[in-house]
Order: sequence, then C-alpha cells, then structure tokens
Amino acid sequence: MNSIINVFDIKHKSSDGKARTGTLHLPHGDVRTPVFMPVGTNATVKAMPKDFLEEIDFDIILANTYHLFLRTGPDLIKEAGGLHGFSQWKKNFLTDSGGFQVFSLSKLRKITEEGVRFQSHIDGSYHMFTPENVVETQTKFNSDIQMQLDGCAGWGVERKEAERALRITSDWLVRAKNQWEKEQNEGYQGLLFPIVQGNFFEDLRKKSAEFVSSLDMPGIAIGGLSVGEPPEEFKRFMNYTVQYLPEEKPKYVMGIGTPEYILDAVAAGIDMFDCVLPTRNARNGSYFTRRGMLSIKQERWIHDFNPVDSECNCKVCRTYSRSYLRHLFKEQEILSSILASYHNLYFLNNLLKEIRVAIDEDRFEEYRRDFLEKFHQGV
Amino acid sequence: MNSIINVFDIKHKSSDGKARTGTLHLPHGDVRTPVFMPVGTNATVKAMPKDFLEEIDFDIILANTYHLFLRTGPDLIKEAGGLHGFSQWKKNFLTDSGGFQVFSLSKLRKITEEGVRFQSHIDGSYHMFTPENVVETQTKFNSDIQMQLDGCAGWGVERKEAERALRITSDWLVRAKNQWEKEQNEGYQGLLFPIVQGNFFEDLRKKSAEFVSSLDMPGIAIGGLSVGEPPEEFKRFMNYTVQYLPEEKPKYVMGIGTPEYILDAVAAGIDMFDCVLPTRNARNGSYFTRRGMLSIKQERWIHDFNPVDSECNCKVCRTYSRSYLRHLFKEQEILSSILASYHNLYFLNNLLKEIRVAIDEDRFEEYRRDFLEKFHQGV
Repeated sequence: MNSIINVFDIKHKSSDGKARTGTLHLPHGDVRTPVFMPVGTNATVKAMPKDFLEEIDFDIILANTYHLFLRTGPDLIKEAGGLHGFSQWKKNFLTDSGGFQVFSLSKLRKITEEGVRFQSHIDGSYHMFTPENVVETQTKFNSDIQMQLDGCAGWGVERKEAERALRITSDWLVRAKNQWEKEQNEGYQGLLFPIVQGNFFEDLRKKSAEFVSSLDMPGIAIGGLSVGEPPEEFKRFMNYTVQYLPEEKPKYVMGIGTPEYILDAVAAGIDMFDCVLPTRNARNGSYFTRRGMLSIKQERWIHDFNPVDSECNCKVCRTYSRSYLRHLFKEQEILSSILASYHNLYFLNNLLKEIRVAIDEDRFEEYRRDFLEKFHQGV
Repeated sequence: MNSIINVFDIKHKSSDGKARTGTLHLPHGDVRTPVFMPVGTNATVKAMPKDFLEEIDFDIILANTYHLFLRTGPDLIKEAGGLHGFSQWKKNFLTDSGGFQVFSLSKLRKITEEGVRFQSHIDGSYHMFTPENVVETQTKFNSDIQMQLDGCAGWGVERKEAERALRITSDWLVRAKNQWEKEQNEGYQGLLFPIVQGNFFEDLRKKSAEFVSSLDMPGIAIGGLSVGEPPEEFKRFMNYTVQYLPEEKPKYVMGIGTPEYILDAVAAGIDMFDCVLPTRNARNGSYFTRRGMLSIKQERWIHDFNPVDSECNCKVCRTYSRSYLRHLFKEQEILSSILASYHNLYFLNNLLKEIRVAIDEDRFEEYRRDFLEKFHQGV
C-alpha cells in the first residue's frame, strides 16, 4: 500500500512570508485552511448543540481519544457508526492519540518501548496505550485525521529525557504507520499525522522534523509546544521546526487558541490549530472581542446594553446585551455557557475567515498588525 | 378606569365535558389555549437558547419575580426595556408574584396585614413584599400577565391558618387591583390575575372563588394546589373550585407539568399551566415519551441506537440515539441538559397541540384515554 496521499492543495502563498491558504480534502468534506478546530472532548463541543457549530460553519472538530477510550469505549462508538454516527456531527473529526492526556491527567504512567501504561484519572483502572492500539482505536472512531501516539516531555526537562522521548516517538511512528497501512487495506479512509518532538533542543527538533518528513505522511503535527514555555520560546521553536518540514504538507500545531498565537502560527506557515481555551474561557465568562478579552462578570457591565463586541456579527452580539449576559453568568445559568461558547467560537472562526481573505489578497502581515494593535487596546 | 378587559376568546367547547380551546390576546401576541408555559426563572428557560423556544413554537413563558427582584432588580430590567428587552424573548411573559418562593425558599418570613417580610435565601438580606410593590415590580418587568401577591398555606394546615391566608389574599387582591389600575392609567398594558385560595376546605374555596369572580378580572388563577397533597385531592379541589368561576374567563392552575395533571386540568376547563418539572427532569436525565418516563442513565440504553421516542418529531428524536444521549448524561455534558430540555418541552408543547386539535374535533376524552393508556405502559 502506498501511503503517499495528496490531500492538500495550497491556494495562495503570501509573497512576504510563509502564510498560505489551502484546502484539505478529507473523507467528510473539504476544510479551508488555515483553520481553527474547536475541541469536542466527549464527541460534543462543550455547551454547543451541533446546529450551532453548523451555523458558525466549522468544517472540522476535535475529539479526545483518552476520554472516549476510557469511558464510552471504541467498540460502542464503532457500533454507532464511528464518531459521526454517534454524535451526528457529519463533517470531519480529528482525534488526538491520547498521549497528551496520559501525560497531563492520568495518575500514574510508565513509558516503555512497548507503549505507555497508565491509571485512569476517573476510576484508577489500568490501561495500556501502544502505537498500534491507538491507531486501532482511532480507526474505530473513524477519525478523518488521527494522530500517532507520541512521547511528550515538558518545558525545562533535561536533554536526556528529551532524547528518550524523541527516540520513542520516532519508533512509535513507524509502528503506527504500519498499523495505519493495515487499516487502510481494510478500507479505512482517514489520515494519520505524525508528530514532531524534540522538546526545546534545536538539534533534536531538526532530527525529528527530518525523520518525520522522510516518511512522506499526509500531514505533519508539531507537538511538544504549548507545554508551559514562554511565548517567545513557543514562537522560536515553531518557526525553527517548520523550516525542516516540506512546504507542501498541511501542518498542525496542537493546543493554541488565542488570536496572538494563531496569528504567529499562520505567519509561520501553519495550517491547523485547536484549543479548549475559547470554550473553557466562555464557561468562565471571558469573551473575545476585537479590543481584547472582556470579563462579563465585571460590575461595569450592569447597565451596559451594548453587545459584547459591536463589530461582531454573531447572533449573540446581534441579540443580547452585556447587561443580560452578565446577569446570566452571575446567575450561573447554562445559557451563559452556551452563548459565550457560541460567541467565542464564532469570533475565532471569523478571525480565520478574515485571515484567509487577507492571505489571498496578499496583505496578511498588514491584517495581523492591525488586528493586534486593536486587540491590545483593551475593552 | 374600567378594569373589565375582554382578552379571551373561547373557540370550541367539548360537548362531553368542560375542556375548551381558545385564544388569549396578550400585548406580545396571541396565545393558543390550553397552553403549557415553560418556566424561565431568571428570564431564561434553563439550558434553552431562545431560538429553540421559538423553534418549538411557544407563545408565552414564565419568569419568577422573587429571583429577579432579589438579584437583578426591577429597575435594571425596566431600564433594559422590560423582560422582553432584557432577555430578547419577544413573545409573552407571565410573572408570578414571588409569594410562593417567599413561602418555599426564604429563610424567615413574617406575614402581616401590610405584606410579607422575608430574608433572602441568597444573602440573608431583608425585604418586604406588599400587594402594591409586587404589582409595581411586575409592571417594571412589563409582564404580559402578572399575578397578585397571595398568602399560600400548605397541605394539612389547620382551618384557622387557611382562613387567615384567605382573608389576607382577598384583602391583598383589592390593593393589588388598585395598584394595577394606577399602572394602567400610566400606560401599562399587561393583565393582573387574581388567585383563588382557601386551602383544602370546600367552603373557603367557594368563598374565595366567588369573591375573585365578583371583581371581574381578565383571568383567574387557582392557587394553593400542588403543595404536597395527594393527586386525588388536587383533582377534587381543582374541579370543586372551577364550578364557582365564570366560564368565560381564562383559568390558570400553577405548578403542574406532568401529562396526567395537565389532562386532568384540561378536562376541568383549565386553560393555562406551568411547571419547572419538564426542564428540571431533563437536567436529571429524565425524558418524556409516549410510553412514560425514560431514565437515560440506565445501562439498558448503552447499545440502543433508537431515538428516545420514535413517535416524537422533535429534532432531538430525529437526530440522536438513546446511546449518545446516555453518554452525554454520564459525561455530565451541558449538551445533555440542552437536548433533554428541548425534547421535554417539545413533548409537552406537542401534547397541548394534540389536545387542542382533539378538543376542536370534539374527541378530547377519547384522546385523553388513549394517551394515558399508552403513557402507563412504560418504556
């Protein structure tokens, strides 16, 4: 089986930088890039009925393998027709490998050559993730894009630990790829993305990027960033890594969801991002606006009958006042989480739409500068 | 000012009973009766974006004066353009007087001739409700229907207490009516409904019904039911009270929201009902179906890919499986509360639609019998 799959068309490259627009061709429809993907941990984006995701016009959402593996189970989801049949979200799903949650959530974990053994944070039960069973699981989910199991090391670890994590990640990629090719032979149409590791060591990053590139997979994720490092380090290592990756591949940086980070990533030539932040912030009453973050609980909004963001065209801003949204938040009404999540996701999706237009019109750097200047003014 | 307002047209009376259909003409549009009104305590029906209430096709929702008085405040709501401007629900609002919540929620209360002094269950602050300020408050809300402040006595109280509650309720009605007429003279267009009390003493109920009827108000509520009495007593006192009320007035029984109670009330000639039950049950994973209540948390639904109710046309039943809805409930996803609330409210609204058609076609008793027979079969 030939694993070279051409799934990505680049539409326009900026003349003054690396930003580009494109289209990802996936089993459940095309995805316009650069794209922000909302996180739907349990096969639902928190507080968002799928009609609303459709209204906002998302092409792809995420689900978390760790959570769905432990509780609901891959076999049930397969029986239900994969994530699409189960959740009735009929556009694309990307699933992570679960490795990051093992790293951040589970009580106990032991990484060996074989895989990672861990204890569930929910009930203390023991489980094993291997590169193979993580591909099997995501295939049962019928994920449109699945991620390899990787070994993640945090910010500030010793070189030795970073080296070990990289070696394991590379070995696991080969095994994941073999398993994925088997699944493809049995009819699976989703893609597998490898993950570049190497922590915050340039030579390790380069080595990892070159190895991953040599395998000619359909897309590439840059992992091990956004793990607690300062923003400058994030940016430096993202840019450093990108230069060793083939231009024609779609590139994905995991776990970024603020306008600043997204604009930096787009500028670096990254095509895909995801983050829980917009929806988690929403549940905490924090709204994106053109002029920065707005904390809805503040007393200054009590008598403010303006929309959260007068420049936003979402139905929350077209309908409700800051005063009413503050009231809903203070009363801990579920509607507060719903409306704030709607607005924040609309805001980010709209940011990406504007970014795509700006790139196509060859004025991305101007757009980025203007956006950030206003965004840093404050509400 | 003449307080006789003809706001209700009876469309069809059953030939074999008291059930009837009609139309209530209110400031924010017509309401088809019999009608179930969802409860939106804090100017939002819990977990229900207003688009969904519009989709389901409700004509009127409730809000609770006690909660909105204590926290958000009548002045802010008035400043926002009343409840309609504040919440952007542009159809009708009915508000209660707050009396029942003082009775059931507040820490301390002292009823005098003047009014009821109570301590907030939220912060322990002291407040006073009088018949006048409760009308003023609901006028600030711009309620389409407001309720008088009444004195409620529970199930099983001594005759003496019931007598006192009734006397106070009657006195307060006269004062509320005076205040309402003042508000009308200043342009307020909403209605004021009096409340029949009398507890579970026939002569007191009769006395109260006759007094209330003599004032020729635009509609009449039967209060003091659904306070812990057995279903037979509820039914007996509802029917007993109705016979002393003028046929042409719209009648409202507060706090009922199960199909059995609603069908009994419709049979008694009642036109309006409200209850938190459908949405509260929803948040606890309890769904209405044609064959009775379905508890979504049960293990038997794990592999069940059928809709909650295959005879229901709501978008939840047309889209999602019991298996997925169980998963959402077990994962404590907000979407569980949203979808269950949607379904339960759709189910009740649809029940009322079917009831109205059955009455118009003069087959209400047949409909009621068939509905209950199936409803008691169990899922």
